Amino acid sequence: VMCCSTVCGETPDPRRREMMMRQEVSRQIGGSVQLTGDEQRLNARLHKLKQQEIAAKVFPPAIHFFKARPLIQKSPIFSLLQKMPKGAALHIHSSSLVSADWLVMNITYRPHCYVCFTWSGSVRFLFSSRQPFPSWDCLYWQLLKTLRGNMANPTDFDHSLMKHLTLFKEDPDAAYPSQDAVWEKFELAFLAISGLVTYAPVFKDFLYKGLEELLHDNIMYLELRTGLSRTYELDGSIHDKSWSLRTYQEVTQKFVAEHPGFLGARLIISVHRVLSVSDVKAAVKEAIQMQKDFPEVVAGFDLVGREDRGRPLWFFREALSLPAELGIKLPYFFHAGETDLEGTEVDENILDALLFNTQRIGHGYALAHHPLAKELSKKGNVAVEVCPISNQVLKLVSDLRNHPAAVLMSEGHPMVVSSDDPSLFGTTGLSYDFYEMFLGIGGLRANLGTLKELASNSIRYSTLPPPLKERGLTMWQKTWDKFIAENS
Amino acid sequence: VMCCSTVCGETPDPRRREMMMRQEVSRQIGGSVQLTGDEQRLNARLHKLKQQEIAAKVFPPAIHFFKARPLIQKSPIFSLLQKMPKGAALHIHSSSLVSADWLVMNITYRPHCYVCFTWSGSVRFLFSSRQPFPSWDCLYWQLLKTLRGNMANPTDFDHSLMKHLTLFKEDPDAAYPSQDAVWEKFELAFLAISGLVTYAPVFKDFLYKGLEELLHDNIMYLELRTGLSRTYELDGSIHDKSWSLRTYQEVTQKFVAEHPGFLGARLIISVHRVLSVSDVKAAVKEAIQMQKDFPEVVAGFDLVGREDRGRPLWFFREALSLPAELGIKLPYFFHAGETDLEGTEVDENILDALLFNTQRIGHGYALAHHPLAKELSKKGNVAVEVCPISNQVLKLVSDLRNHPAAVLMSEGHPMVVSSDDPSLFGTTGLSYDFYEMFLGIGGLRANLGTLKELASNSIRYSTLPPPLKERGLTMWQKTWDKFIAENS
Ligand SMILES: [Zn+2]
Ligand SMILES: [Zn+2]
Repeated sequence: VMCCSTVCGETPDPRRREMMMRQEVSRQIGGSVQLTGDEQRLNARLHKLKQQEIAAKVFPPAIHFFKARPLIQKSPIFSLLQKMPKGAALHIHSSSLVSADWLVMNITYRPHCYVCFTWSGSVRFLFSSRQPFPSWDCLYWQLLKTLRGNMANPTDFDHSLMKHLTLFKEDPDAAYPSQDAVWEKFELAFLAISGLVTYAPVFKDFLYKGLEELLHDNIMYLELRTGLSRTYELDGSIHDKSWSLRTYQEVTQKFVAEHPGFLGARLIISVHRVLSVSDVKAAVKEAIQMQKDFPEVVAGFDLVGREDRGRPLWFFREALSLPAELGIKLPYFFHAGETDLEGTEVDENILDALLFNTQRIGHGYALAHHPLAKELSKKGNVAVEVCPISNQVLKLVSDLRNHPAAVLMSEGHPMVVSSDDPSLFGTTGLSYDFYEMFLGIGGLRANLGTLKELASNSIRYSTLPPPLKERGLTMWQKTWDKFIAENS
Repeated sequence: VMCCSTVCGETPDPRRREMMMRQEVSRQIGGSVQLTGDEQRLNARLHKLKQQEIAAKVFPPAIHFFKARPLIQKSPIFSLLQKMPKGAALHIHSSSLVSADWLVMNITYRPHCYVCFTWSGSVRFLFSSRQPFPSWDCLYWQLLKTLRGNMANPTDFDHSLMKHLTLFKEDPDAAYPSQDAVWEKFELAFLAISGLVTYAPVFKDFLYKGLEELLHDNIMYLELRTGLSRTYELDGSIHDKSWSLRTYQEVTQKFVAEHPGFLGARLIISVHRVLSVSDVKAAVKEAIQMQKDFPEVVAGFDLVGREDRGRPLWFFREALSLPAELGIKLPYFFHAGETDLEGTEVDENILDALLFNTQRIGHGYALAHHPLAKELSKKGNVAVEVCPISNQVLKLVSDLRNHPAAVLMSEGHPMVVSSDDPSLFGTTGLSYDFYEMFLGIGGLRANLGTLKELASNSIRYSTLPPPLKERGLTMWQKTWDKFIAENS
């Protein structure tokens, strides 16, 4: 049996104990960050606030986010996190970039917006200069303006529309008894949103508004996962994907020009993992072409959709090997291990993502259970994109103190915080996820150094080319220093 | 960025992938166990059964045990686990050794049993030759026989008594909204039980019955945590603690003589962590004396009770250093890290337990978040006593797939399975906890090798002296081989 104390069998030496405790803390994310005097002051304040929130009757990270949100909004730690420069958002899906509130109150109030309620009770939108044709699931399209005009209470009606565009429920456990139930609603909400945001004029405003929401949450850069749907016009004509890419570029450039505090946005082309190998092959080829045509915009490639129901990465190996065979570098950013099915084929996605040289791991929820993959990703400096609220809402974990990222955090595993589908979960930017990460997953041990490392990590693990990354880090440090000066 | 494939940038080599997957599996508990032909056949069957249970509409480890129990009882894996020789139960508290059913249907039917319902609605029992005196919480003692005789429906009455002796509820989430609520009920149930089992004649039968229940669940050895309360007689006279120790020894010897398949039982003297330093000091001294007087019975010392509310180990350092100062070896078996309060004082119990040379760690729920402590306990071969159902019922985790032991399991950390307070949780023996461990925590990856290692670990990490341990392992192997032969 082992012997920890300096002399076996005697009272443990308090100095040695102190040292060991410090050594353990030093391993965690932010554990080797040196805090300035000002930072130490803010850190002490944060620690006190944290102790209060942990001692409160209800600890928000322990309950469902939909119930926790009003509590979080009142938290002084949350308002600090809102002000904190959080760096980059590296894992957001394009459809859920902008809050449902804006979609309903702005977009659906625009002229020529038609709505249809499907037989299964979900909703579709379409902008059209004439009455749209019925389709199999939409027999009866109504002009939204007329419909709303006939409503006794348009406010209630707008609220009912919003409910189709988010997962929010007063009683989420009753509404979503299983992962299947919540994923079904998840995919229906995506369908509802897509008719709104693929209308070409809306598409531009949507992106601009999305960048505004991020900047407002003190985020300076975005890497957006997008299926790059083709957009349409009022007359039903359809743009090709280059149009979308060009528009992404133009809108971003315009936004950056008007907001010098913002650095830009890049895209990770994402296709659904229910596709066939040949479809994914075609998508990989297309992504290679897009990367060639828009090198500043296209950052890489990913497969998305529910891992437990879709095909594992290894199923697509032929498609995913294509770039290497062609001698072309197409960086991968795979969703992997967003599952609790330990030991299944899907659970091998993490190892396969690493074998295909993924640059980051989306979620990596299962990584802590994979010691070899964990070592490889640590050595290879492959960051995990942790999305706490997403994992909770999609029912992988209920009490966020049990989120496996706590293990990775305690070991200083490379990681960033992200929000996955903010508008669907009723969040905006990254502050809510930072809150859950800082209090729930990090516990009392996570400190200002942890926050500093998590924020700067998001620039460090971005796909920005080296000179821009340098500039980004400098910009971030400046706003960080300002934040510290104003809040210490 | 790293490069996993043999030649960088090319398709990953399938053989290398195979090898890595095998390497990862080999690290887990049981990963290096070589299975015989018969074992491989049973393993294949288990794997298929597992796939079926994972694919079922409701996966028992994902829901509260009180709701999962009827499903588990129908599981063919569970009936295999019941038959499987599981080795030793190393973490059970004496008050909850025997099922509530037996306490009510056997003990409370004995003569001279009085009952009292306190003003707060809980219950106390006392055996007495005359009407007991009222106390501050028990103003009115009734003879149970009379009371039961006056009941229209004695069966209902007996069921209501049982409810006081377990935590079981139809709707546990509503009944126990918080950790505080469930711990309160937990401690009330202990109070109710204590009046029954500290009656000297019952005490003997209780222990005998407890060993019977274990043997019936194919367990061959027990290490029991006990506060060693003094027992009483009908006339109110009280035995000293030596009487209890002697009785433990005699009853165990009798049981072993009558059941040659059973190896024995030892005690871990446990005191409550709400005590003062001087009280614990006295308890340590007493334990040293008991160990001297009954070396075969007394295995060591522990501090028990809710960690989040009690004093941390370091608070008791003076008391815990006593044996070392006296040059005496009193082995420790500390409960540590049965908490989700990461980063608090309580969360340091794990490190302190190791600093005080604990022989095993009770629960170690927080260990996966302590990389240094994890390394130390692995190097020092300090096993974690994992009690899945206890952690779920006491609200540390709801879906057992998120239990942090999954991390430890994947890394091959030394561990055993135990049941903590079987009668309070409505379990008996270890089969239910083995089920949760095997399906929930282990996932599809855990296999017959995992079960074999977990079972044999319980002998290996016991306090049995070397020759007896050898004998135990041989006995276990024999019953294991028989189990395999009968079920492959
Ligand atoms: Zn995602
Ligand atoms: Zn215990």
